[in-house]
Amino acid sequence: LIVAAALARLGVGPASRGPWAGKRVLVSAGPTRTYIDPVRFVTNASTGAMGFALADAAQRAGASVTLVAGPVELVTPAGVRRVDVETAAEMQAALENELSQGPCDWVAMVAAVQDLEIDGGAARKLEKAELLATLPTLGWRAAPDILAALTARFGRGAAPGAPRSRFLGFAAQTVEDGPEDRLQQELIRLGSVKLRAKGADAIFVNRVGAPGVGFASATNAGLLLARDGDAIAVRASGPPIAKAALAAWLLDALAATS
Amino acid sequence: LIVAAALARLGVGPASRGPWAGKRVLVSAGPTRTYIDPVRFVTNASTGAMGFALADAAQRAGASVTLVAGPVELVTPAGVRRVDVETAAEMQAALENELSQGPCDWVAMVAAVQDLEIDGGAARKLEKAELLATLPTLGWRAAPDILAALTARFGRGAAPGAPRSRFLGFAAQTVEDGPEDRLQQELIRLGSVKLRAKGADAIFVNRVGAPGVGFASATNAGLLLARDGDAIAVRASGPPIAKAALAAWLLDALAATS
Repeated sequence: LIVAAALARLGVGPASRGPWAGKRVLVSAGPTRTYIDPVRFVTNASTGAMGFALADAAQRAGASVTLVAGPVELVTPAGVRRVDVETAAEMQAALENELSQGPCDWVAMVAAVQDLEIDGGAARKLEKAELLATLPTLGWRAAPDILAALTARFGRGAAPGAPRSRFLGFAAQTVEDGPEDRLQQELIRLGSVKLRAKGADAIFVNRVGAPGVGFASATNAGLLLARDGDAIAVRASGPPIAKAALAAWLLDALAATS
Repeated sequence: LIVAAALARLGVGPASRGPWAGKRVLVSAGPTRTYIDPVRFVTNASTGAMGFALADAAQRAGASVTLVAGPVELVTPAGVRRVDVETAAEMQAALENELSQGPCDWVAMVAAVQDLEIDGGAARKLEKAELLATLPTLGWRAAPDILAALTARFGRGAAPGAPRSRFLGFAAQTVEDGPEDRLQQELIRLGSVKLRAKGADAIFVNRVGAPGVGFASATNAGLLLARDGDAIAVRASGPPIAKAALAAWLLDALAATS
């Protein structure tokens, strides 16, 4: 009994027979914040639900999971190690810190990182008039592309022979409305471009504004594009399903690509 | 028994003997969002906890309570009617709609409303390069001052003889560090200016960044400034206490000013 309990605590219980037993998984989740001053910031409506569901599912499947989370109102899944961050720079540093300690079987970049930064946000709360005068002159600039930076150092761009991590990106795409098969083709095209541009091993793409998909929804659906030699294999998750169910589907699909 | 249950449902149970029995209370809570495009917005870290605590306490004290809430992750207090909004304009419209239906004994403006708006945020998600090119040229402008607009129409500025509501403002002030009595004097000075400028009947002021105070904290503390004829009466809540306890203190203090 004591041995069983110890094994269960080590995550080598019944799940140890599955494809994720003993694997190392790193997940980013939630939004980040770009501060204009100490109380105002630019962000998005990501709740972290998809990333937390994926971390939970991977842990249940036997993986050792670290979750780097932006500011969200969610409880840490049991057995998952959590690192909290607020800004894109903090998120990048936390992920690099984890990857510097050794490769991961999969790094799932689910976080909706703010893609702009501000050089020198104000150190104190601005009065309304100051705020308006300051906004256009703030040093707005593009945030570093975290996924591309990480794959270059720890993924497909790592030195030959060096141990490397595999990276799963997430991309919400804007696609003009149209017939279902046309939407799907366009998503595959946009996703394939992004997969290669970012040096990722797989990418999950879905459509901004599609019903039952994305930030504000309890459900999600999309396409998983994964490298298969020089080709790209496409798997469709089907109609929108609960984020926990989609997380389980994603893990199965990733395991099938391995 | 049936009568007692019916009375309890009507909010005229034991609490009906207190100073809030049969009173009408309107509370605004949470942040608002200023959208740059459909997925990016400027906001603040208000959790809505203080406003929700005040709505809950007023309802328990026997008041009929409506809560106008920005996007927060909180459960509606039992017995409170809730109206959800996202932007400052929606918040103002919802409050005006409530006040048009008749005066309130107190309107507690706890929401941390974004004080800037954008003329013509983008209708679709912007690519990173577009976003950077667009940001400085967006029509950033000051949002209407909701508290001042409401007091002018429904409060101290209402037509003579017309039924009017009383307004409680909330103001987080930036005050340079210093000895405790100096900080307090400066808070009273800033709060008095704001109380008069906004035409409010009372204002709760606290200090940005003080320990145990504000957005990120489970506790809160500050000063209640209330009009007393031509003078202003000051009441201090004391050391930081749980937001629910501070809500009860505020209700008692407001009842004492009536």
